[in-house]
Amino acid sequence: MIAVLKPGTTQQQIDNLINWFKGRGLDVHLSVGQYRTILGLIGDTSKIDVELLEGLEMIESVKRITEPFKSANRKFHPDDSAVDIGGGIKLGGGHFQLIAGPCSVESAEQILGIAESVKASGATILRGGAFKPRTSPYDFQGLRAEGIELLLEAKKKTGMPIITEIMNQNHLPMFEEVDIIQVGARNMQNFELLKELGRTNKPILLKRGLANTLKELLMSAEYIMAGGNNNVILCERGIRTFETYTRNTLDLSAVPMLRELTHLPIVIDPSHATGMARLVKPMALAAAAAGADGIMIEVHNDPANALCDGAQSLTPAQFSEVAEKVRQIREVIAE
Amino acid sequence: MIAVLKPGTTQQQIDNLINWFKGRGLDVHLSVGQYRTILGLIGDTSKIDVELLEGLEMIESVKRITEPFKSANRKFHPDDSAVDIGGGIKLGGGHFQLIAGPCSVESAEQILGIAESVKASGATILRGGAFKPRTSPYDFQGLRAEGIELLLEAKKKTGMPIITEIMNQNHLPMFEEVDIIQVGARNMQNFELLKELGRTNKPILLKRGLANTLKELLMSAEYIMAGGNNNVILCERGIRTFETYTRNTLDLSAVPMLRELTHLPIVIDPSHATGMARLVKPMALAAAAAGADGIMIEVHNDPANALCDGAQSLTPAQFSEVAEKVRQIREVIAE
Amino acid sequence: MIAVLKPGTTQQQIDNLINWFKGRGLDVHLSVGQYRTILGLIGDTSKIDVELLEGLEMIESVKRITEPFKSANRKFHPDDSAVDIGGGIKLGGGHFQLIAGPCSVESAEQILGIAESVKASGATILRGGAFKPRTSPYDFQGLRAEGIELLLEAKKKTGMPIITEIMNQNHLPMFEEVDIIQVGARNMQNFELLKELGRTNKPILLKRGLANTLKELLMSAEYIMAGGNNNVILCERGIRTFETYTRNTLDLSAVPMLRELTHLPIVIDPSHATGMARLVKPMALAAAAAGADGIMIEVHNDPANALCDGAQSLTPAQFSEVAEKVRQIREVIAE
Amino acid sequence: MIAVLKPGTTQQQIDNLINWFKGRGLDVHLSVGQYRTILGLIGDTSKIDVELLEGLEMIESVKRITEPFKSANRKFHPDDSAVDIGGGIKLGGGHFQLIAGPCSVESAEQILGIAESVKASGATILRGGAFKPRTSPYDFQGLRAEGIELLLEAKKKTGMPIITEIMNQNHLPMFEEVDIIQVGARNMQNFELLKELGRTNKPILLKRGLANTLKELLMSAEYIMAGGNNNVILCERGIRTFETYTRNTLDLSAVPMLRELTHLPIVIDPSHATGMARLVKPMALAAAAAGADGIMIEVHNDPANALCDGAQSLTPAQFSEVAEKVRQIREVIAE
Repeated sequence: MIAVLKPGTTQQQIDNLINWFKGRGLDVHLSVGQYRTILGLIGDTSKIDVELLEGLEMIESVKRITEPFKSANRKFHPDDSAVDIGGGIKLGGGHFQLIAGPCSVESAEQILGIAESVKASGATILRGGAFKPRTSPYDFQGLRAEGIELLLEAKKKTGMPIITEIMNQNHLPMFEEVDIIQVGARNMQNFELLKELGRTNKPILLKRGLANTLKELLMSAEYIMAGGNNNVILCERGIRTFETYTRNTLDLSAVPMLRELTHLPIVIDPSHATGMARLVKPMALAAAAAGADGIMIEVHNDPANALCDGAQSLTPAQFSEVAEKVRQIREVIAE
Repeated sequence: MIAVLKPGTTQQQIDNLINWFKGRGLDVHLSVGQYRTILGLIGDTSKIDVELLEGLEMIESVKRITEPFKSANRKFHPDDSAVDIGGGIKLGGGHFQLIAGPCSVESAEQILGIAESVKASGATILRGGAFKPRTSPYDFQGLRAEGIELLLEAKKKTGMPIITEIMNQNHLPMFEEVDIIQVGARNMQNFELLKELGRTNKPILLKRGLANTLKELLMSAEYIMAGGNNNVILCERGIRTFETYTRNTLDLSAVPMLRELTHLPIVIDPSHATGMARLVKPMALAAAAAGADGIMIEVHNDPANALCDGAQSLTPAQFSEVAEKVRQIREVIAE
Repeated sequence: MIAVLKPGTTQQQIDNLINWFKGRGLDVHLSVGQYRTILGLIGDTSKIDVELLEGLEMIESVKRITEPFKSANRKFHPDDSAVDIGGGIKLGGGHFQLIAGPCSVESAEQILGIAESVKASGATILRGGAFKPRTSPYDFQGLRAEGIELLLEAKKKTGMPIITEIMNQNHLPMFEEVDIIQVGARNMQNFELLKELGRTNKPILLKRGLANTLKELLMSAEYIMAGGNNNVILCERGIRTFETYTRNTLDLSAVPMLRELTHLPIVIDPSHATGMARLVKPMALAAAAAGADGIMIEVHNDPANALCDGAQSLTPAQFSEVAEKVRQIREVIAE
Repeated sequence: MIAVLKPGTTQQQIDNLINWFKGRGLDVHLSVGQYRTILGLIGDTSKIDVELLEGLEMIESVKRITEPFKSANRKFHPDDSAVDIGGGIKLGGGHFQLIAGPCSVESAEQILGIAESVKASGATILRGGAFKPRTSPYDFQGLRAEGIELLLEAKKKTGMPIITEIMNQNHLPMFEEVDIIQVGARNMQNFELLKELGRTNKPILLKRGLANTLKELLMSAEYIMAGGNNNVILCERGIRTFETYTRNTLDLSAVPMLRELTHLPIVIDPSHATGMARLVKPMALAAAAAGADGIMIEVHNDPANALCDGAQSLTPAQFSEVAEKVRQIREVIAE
């Protein structure tokens, strides 16, 4: 971390500041220039509050050289993490998983039918929304508790681990048998929820917020990990841009960029990103080519009549085709 | 609402769709063109789920003519709403309030000292953060419960109503004597929290999310109002743009634009928006000139050593000057 | 196109408006609702000026159903266009091309050396910057005219067609033997330049602006095509988002989305988008998987000492590896 | 400027780099840390090409401490600049001007009528578009040369200086008697045009691009000033954000922020920013309160039938009211 001091800072002030840093276990390198004095701080600066520093009158600017995330940082954990999903399945560290299922759980036969169909095509984890975050209070909000029950039944019958979204920390008891808890984009900075999930040891799939940076995504992962739960999976699901033809813009460069910054696994969700079934296939293949550890795809047996987001769901037959091509592309990049 | 049908839709499908709309209490106008058939839906379409409609195979696109928010909509409530804050104070409907106080509550003497000072300069509501949303888990998170206690003491001693932020619905019991509950930008779409606040009758100051549209802000207000709580105050606090010199970009056109769309009061927070004390004065004056119902300003007796966001706090003397100019500008625009 | 009239519009005004539309060759469907009157306009509305309509006092809003671009629109030209580059090479319509070369032309031996090397690895078109758009007037502006001379020499010696950027319409005479003229992102809406290029019959590679939508890109293509030059190639090179780790965000969903909207060929530039050599390979493979008609990659024989953008250039050996994988992925998606 | 070197850089490489910097007239401070070596560069670094430095293999990152703009930088020119418009009028340095007129020049009587009317209400400079940048080639492109003739006539008859937009450097001869040449948002980074304008001594009003930062705006001003023309006026006219109710988002914090960064005058254009006549008044008053040196407002004698952008034009009567309130607010802030 580098702190640039304002012109006119007195020697006394500089000494006080240096002592303050040393009291926090940091080494300080002083560089006195013609116009400005610069302090280089060496050591673990991840716990230094930049805004607090910038508030000091003598400080002109503060710049981090190392990243403010630590548990998620690849520098301190060079090997890829593999998150243990249960049922003998891992995600990350070379273990690729295909997650599939409907946007919303609608009925026992719907979720079971889709589960069996996507399992036959190569999906290894079943997704399905029970609690649905909707912009309007008047839109369908999911089957809620009942939806989780139906997912658990489908899990029992097919043996597939399940993933579903949490929106309220008080619902945690319902998620006891859920294999991966999803945090949605709108809750990425719901810090109280993140802290609560940090106290569990559940795998958490953390979706990037609609207008959040990768650094903010990693800082939110850090909230969970700081509580002791290292089972975090990152998920890129499209960010908000000025483009209106697609619902969001899928940022695939997040895959290699996050790969460099962190040891955590990275999943891509092309269905929510594009909002259109016919764009899911090319984007899923591109995600595989970019090196994602997992791809999460919406599949519905009757997309045209789905209660929610039908426009972006594949049919089981389309999913099967995508799964096969993804497999082939992964072979090409593995060689 | 207008629904454009795809070419090739059969008469039978069209009839079914029309019957479905009629079953939802809507009138339907059919317009058969050379290339496309268009349905115009008349009535209360605010509860129609656009994404569900778009998922139907026969639909090419759906466009709303009226807004999806209803309780917040000026069309159905032509008069400005005034929210009753308590202590004989209203906000909105011609009642202008100046909210001031520190970013974070730090100690009894700090909050009381600032409260007395800003009250003397014309502030009518005291702000202070007890629970602080911070991007990093390692940054100062506020005094939490103790901070609320200190605010309540300051309220008792000065008689000023207080506003402070909630981050967790389970903390609601602590907010019983808080006059205005603030929902921060990162929780604007924490729908479970909004629903819970809708079940209270507390004034809620709802901050616009960093990358959210005014329509989304109004839909979040609608979540609170749909629960029966109409005491919603909207707050613009800067949105995320590509500009990096200022922390965020204060969208002042939100004031006249929201004025047209909704009857709810509108408060501007120039301190968080700019992140720099020296920009707060011009932006506060501009907010007054744009017609805001309230302005919320960070004031600290010792900004250079504030625990958080000191860089954006005014001194009591600077605040006093701003308050006086705001008063004068409000006179000019009222004439 | 749909025009929604304001409540209170008189029958006389409506009749006048209908006559005005009919005078422009459009059919009009009138739909009179309880609150609003809606006009549906049938026919070629691409030449109707929406802003002009919205300026009329009786109009509440105007919504296009069909796109405002016509020559570029797939609806009117269902088959993919293949642009003839010269030298027996086409781009688009099933013809895939790999474009490679340095960011800036620096010397005769540099450009020739790179040209021979990328040609051996499978590149079919040589790129190289002669005129360089730089944010700062103090940064290196390219070899300008001399750079074009050096490119033409490399073309003569290797037989590769060349592509280079134009920044000034008065430079057109220098581009006579250039095979593809590139319009940079910052000039995407330099309408005077586009018009001038529309008067030539040169292949034009039009880069999407940093914060422009796909519709705006297509409207800019329309400027060139409206002048009679249909040889337009679209290029996605990354858009501006809030992400700062990567220079820009490569919008790969632009490939399948543009494929649907237009018949024009689509090229991806992963080098400028990411700004980092180590992200070029995964993004080039992803671009191939998404179905791009061409990929443009920066290659430099000595990236660490390149005069400009060296940080994003591959070495010839790295390029060779990318080219081979791209070939394999194209085989997978072609099956 | 600070350059952070990669771990493993040899002493020989460091010495070479230091010599290279010294050869460019810079002093170098070396700070050797446990993990990293940092070079602090003292002197005029505005002409150092950051991207070139970042391309060097030994460099991890480069951070500017001082700004890359020099002629426009307030640090080197502490006093406000006043640009001489001609006719005894200055803009900036305490000289406030109100610029008004139609979006497009339509006819002799239209432009003369509006000119006389806005002059009577206090406008001091006449605006009017002759060359119009339009997204679609099929939209009205302005009266072009004829429009300039009509403006010059209005100038002769009313004595008002005129401002109009240039889109093509080859049109410069037509602008000889134009008092202020406007560069539109889409041409803000048309560097060849900026260089050409730098060779004149005309006042240039440079509009900020739709998605450009203030730093980029200042770098574009620097292009003009580097050519010897210091008569640059900066103009904020709204930036692109996710908000869709307003056409763009007026960034009023640009006024105090630019005031700090540069000595150049700052004009606000609330008409283009909002795109709605009824938002122009509050935003014009807010601009005055924020301290703008000038405000540019669209006025049309018959907005409902204007050829272009009528929706955002005030009537002369509305303008007169705005002008009076702006005057009063300027008095308040001047006290």
